[in-house]
Order: sequence, then structure tokens, then C-alpha cells
Amino acid sequence: MAAAPRLLIIDTDPGVDDAMAIMLAANSPEFKLVGLTTVYGNVPTALATANALRLLEMAGLGQDVVVAQGAARSLKAGTDMERIADFVHGADGFGDIGLPPPKGTAMDCSAAEFIVRTCRQHPGRVTILALAPLTNIAQALMLDPQLGDKWESLVILGGAFFVNGNVNPAAEANIFGDPDAADLVLGSTSNLRILGLDVTTKCKMSGEEIEELKGRGKYGTFVRDISQFYLGFHREWHDIDAIYLHDPTAMVAVLQPELFSWQRGAVRVATDGVTRGHTVMDASPKGFHGDHGWAAPRPRVEVALGIDSGAVVALIRDRLTAA
Amino acid sequence: MAAAPRLLIIDTDPGVDDAMAIMLAANSPEFKLVGLTTVYGNVPTALATANALRLLEMAGLGQDVVVAQGAARSLKAGTDMERIADFVHGADGFGDIGLPPPKGTAMDCSAAEFIVRTCRQHPGRVTILALAPLTNIAQALMLDPQLGDKWESLVILGGAFFVNGNVNPAAEANIFGDPDAADLVLGSTSNLRILGLDVTTKCKMSGEEIEELKGRGKYGTFVRDISQFYLGFHREWHDIDAIYLHDPTAMVAVLQPELFSWQRGAVRVATDGVTRGHTVMDASPKGFHGDHGWAAPRPRVEVALGIDSGAVVALIRDRLTAA
Repeated sequence: MAAAPRLLIIDTDPGVDDAMAIMLAANSPEFKLVGLTTVYGNVPTALATANALRLLEMAGLGQDVVVAQGAARSLKAGTDMERIADFVHGADGFGDIGLPPPKGTAMDCSAAEFIVRTCRQHPGRVTILALAPLTNIAQALMLDPQLGDKWESLVILGGAFFVNGNVNPAAEANIFGDPDAADLVLGSTSNLRILGLDVTTKCKMSGEEIEELKGRGKYGTFVRDISQFYLGFHREWHDIDAIYLHDPTAMVAVLQPELFSWQRGAVRVATDGVTRGHTVMDASPKGFHGDHGWAAPRPRVEVALGIDSGAVVALIRDRLTAA
Repeated sequence: MAAAPRLLIIDTDPGVDDAMAIMLAANSPEFKLVGLTTVYGNVPTALATANALRLLEMAGLGQDVVVAQGAARSLKAGTDMERIADFVHGADGFGDIGLPPPKGTAMDCSAAEFIVRTCRQHPGRVTILALAPLTNIAQALMLDPQLGDKWESLVILGGAFFVNGNVNPAAEANIFGDPDAADLVLGSTSNLRILGLDVTTKCKMSGEEIEELKGRGKYGTFVRDISQFYLGFHREWHDIDAIYLHDPTAMVAVLQPELFSWQRGAVRVATDGVTRGHTVMDASPKGFHGDHGWAAPRPRVEVALGIDSGAVVALIRDRLTAA
């Protein structure tokens, strides 16, 4: 009898690089992808749901993988709308290439409920890859504060620990999307990993390399097509003829965590002021003198501070172009 | 006729490494030290004033260099007392070696008034080295918002930009002492330099090297004696048999800025929450998309991100042991 498979849920706001991560997961036999949970970020939540369904149908996974729609607003949503990164991913999240609407619909169950239910049904076997603001994960932890003992692992794409953010100098976009949720999740369990701009900006794919994806494997042409708008953003704002592979790098952290160097430490998230959304990791070997708001017991999570970017990018390219 | 000398004011909370910086300045012919202005930090302000007077008398500078006492509390002092680092420097700020009280007294002029008056009297010729919480400098800028055009330069020891702080993971002690003052000063002029833990923790002196100071030059034995308590703190809390040369490194930044690599960028300081006292520098070449509280015109100051620590430490040792 074969061992029970490891299950994967991707919490996502697709999004060009989300699509790459999901295609990569679809081509990864190490995990059985069982669900996509959706949230706002690169696009509003309703569009994230439509895009998740589109991706699954395109990948021929529409029957096997469910979509559960999640939060439309951050935990402490004020009068402002959440920041939607349509200037990065296009108004439709997929570079405005005119994809048809999906045929399927989301399940009648919220993202948070789906996450809790799946982790309880398959204790120790579910990995959650969080590619977006952490509202759904925080809500799942509110439903079940012991959830961190039930999932196999939670891998979070987010944060900028010892580098500038990408929303502003202090904040990375996923954490900025819901800093309160992020501070809650990062304080909930030591059984999680987080990788941010410190490592993901070391993984790029050039315009020429994107062009070479065309016609290769099941997804190469699709990935090439949706990446053009995203590439344009990088050319304009980052002055590079390449895209950052944030989300697929996070999927590689699920598949081959040994390609990263992880350091344990408490992480806090600023929720107000000019540093709103900033992630600070305690990287000290010994701690600090006295109590300054950090001394309370706080789980020491694993933070990616190093990466074998060559191996990561090679794996992304191989999996994306697999037949 | 000789050129008019460059003048130096040191704003300080002596403090063991403050004493080292002041002895270093006393042995530096490039600048004429004209005043010490005092503030809380390593010790309370009144003791900082006494220690400044003691140092000058010991260095034979009691007639040439004035002491002006500054703020006893931070700009927005609440109910808490300011954090005094007596566990780092000893209760007397000089490692509790039992120094006699000073003979002289401070002048009848506040630190902020003295700074403003001196910069106006000698436009373009005054350098201010700020080794403590920035309350006095902020008050000087309130008295004269154009002061940044009148000093030759302001060199600030403070901040932790792309490394952990030393009060807690987010904050360095000088900035933590008065974050509101720091945010005001760093927003006031592009004519300032700031160096923090990113570079100063690369400059150390071992217990053995400290011992070798004994009997060398005018100040070697004094520096050796006051450093023992400070060395004990480093052994206990940092697990190193060495002291960090924070303040003397900042004095070297005044003397030989070319030993550092400086990058220009806007700096903001968090004034509340878990990141209180955290310094964030915009190190992006191009800025960010949209307005997230950083877009307002803000001067691009010079931040030290690299250092030739071997040359810096050698200069510190040479000047401290000069006859």
C-alpha cells in the first residue's frame, strides 16, 4: 500500500506569479494539490476566485481541485479599500490577455473553513502555501487556534526582513495587505516558514528566458503570454529586463526547503505608522536586555535568509516546461 | 594667515564609548573642539554634564571647551522615565571606577541654544557629532529650522537600517531614546550623515587590545580602566570578548568619511508600536509606485552602509594612544 500522499492547499490572489506557482504545483508529483483558497491582493477576491477556477480548468484539474473563496477585506479594514496591484498584474490579474470566464464555481465553504476542515481531516499531511495577504490564514487560526499542530507546514511568501519592501521602503505587499493578520499568524505557532524579498528578489527570469517558454510543455505558452504585462512593470519600475519569481520561489520552498538557509527567530509586524506592514525578525543569538515589548513568549519561526537561487530558478524552469 | 579652523561640538551622554570619542577628538588636530552638549541616554542628563566636565578637566581642556546642558526628557516624554543604560556603562557612566566630581560647571545656556548660536557665529564651519538621543538637535532645529544650511555637517550615531537593533530587534538605543526627535532631525535637511549598527558593530576592540592601552599616551590608562564594566556587558550579553567601538567609530566618520561608503536616501523613524525607534531607509534606486506615506518630499540624507573597519579601528587605536 502506498503511503498517504502529502496534500497541498495554495492560498492565492492570482496574479501572474501566482499562476506560475500553481502551474508548478500542478507539475509536482511530491504533493497532491487539493484546493485553492482565494483572497484580495493582486486582484480583488471575486476575481481571484474566477482566476483560480480558470487556472484549474486550463490545467485540466477542474475536477480534482476545489476553489474556496476567502476574505474580501483585511481583518481591521477601515474606510480605505485594500490595495489592489492591478498596475503589476493587469486589471484581470493575468496581464489582460482576454481569457474567457471560468465554467466552474467556488465551493459553498469559506477559505478559512476549508483550510481548517482539510487540516483536521488529514492531520500532519496538509501543507499550506500562502501567496497573498494572510487574512484567510488568520481567520482559520481564529476558528482553530491549534491549527499549527495539525498542518504539516505553512509556508508564507511575505515580508522584507533585512531589505527594503516593495510597497514602500518598509513594507512588502503581502504583509502590507493585512499587517494585523500577519502579526497574528506569525505569533501563532513555531511550525511555519516565511520567505520574503530578502531571497525572492534573487530569483529572476529574463525577458529572453520568458520568450523561450513559448510552446514548451503544457503551460509554457500561457505563462509566456500572461507575463508580458508583468515584465513591462518590472522594466518600468525596477529597471530590469526580467521578472521576479516571488510566488514560484515560494513553491520551491515547499518542494525543496534545503535550497534555502532558514534561521529561527521571533517575528513581529508593525501595524501602524510609517512602518505599517514592516516585518522585524529577532536574529540575535541571545536576545536583548530588559523588556521592550518583544520579551513576551513568541514562537521562533523559520525565516529564509539565504537561497541557492541558481538551483531554485532551474527547478522553476524545469517544472514549468514539463510535459 | 591660517585658514579659520573647523569647529566641533559633540552632543553626548558619556558613557564609556562617548569618552573614547571625546578623547579621540581631543587628539585630533583637524578640528577644534569647542563644546560638549549633554543629554540623557547612557546616564541621566545631570550626570552626563558632570561626566562631560570630568572628561574635559582630565584632558586639560577645561578652559577651552564649554559644556552646555541639554534636555532631561524626550520630546514627547510620557509617564515612563527615559531608558538609561546603566547596565551597559555602570551607574556613573564610566564603569563605576570612582572618579572625583568635576571642579567646573556647565554654562548658563541650553544645549540647543549653544548649538544654534555657535552655528550662526561660524556659518559653514561647525560640525556636530551627535552620539546620543537626538532631543537637543531637534530642539536646535525648532529654534532655527534652517540650521542645516548653517552647520558644516551633522554626523549622527544611530539607527539599525538593515540589521537588528540593540535595544530590541527593531531599535537602536540612541534612536529609541527619542524617536520623535530622530524623525524630525532626519526630515529636516539633506546635509547630514548617519551611521548605525550596520557599520559600528564591525568595529571592535578585544579585551587584550584594551589591556594594551594601559600606560600609553595621555588617555590610554583611563580608557582601559573605564572600559572594564563595558567589556563585562559585552561578554555577558553579546558573547564576545571585545567591546563595540560605536562612538569612536562615529568620530572617525567625522575625521575620515572616506573610510565609509555612504548611500543617499530618505529615512523615516517609527514612533509607535513594536517598531518604535526603528529606522527605515529608502535604498531603492527609483522609488515606489503610488503614495504610501513616503512620497512626501523628504530629504535624502547620507547613510553609512559600508565601512573599512580595519582602517577605522587602527585610527581609533592610534589617536587614543597618541601622546
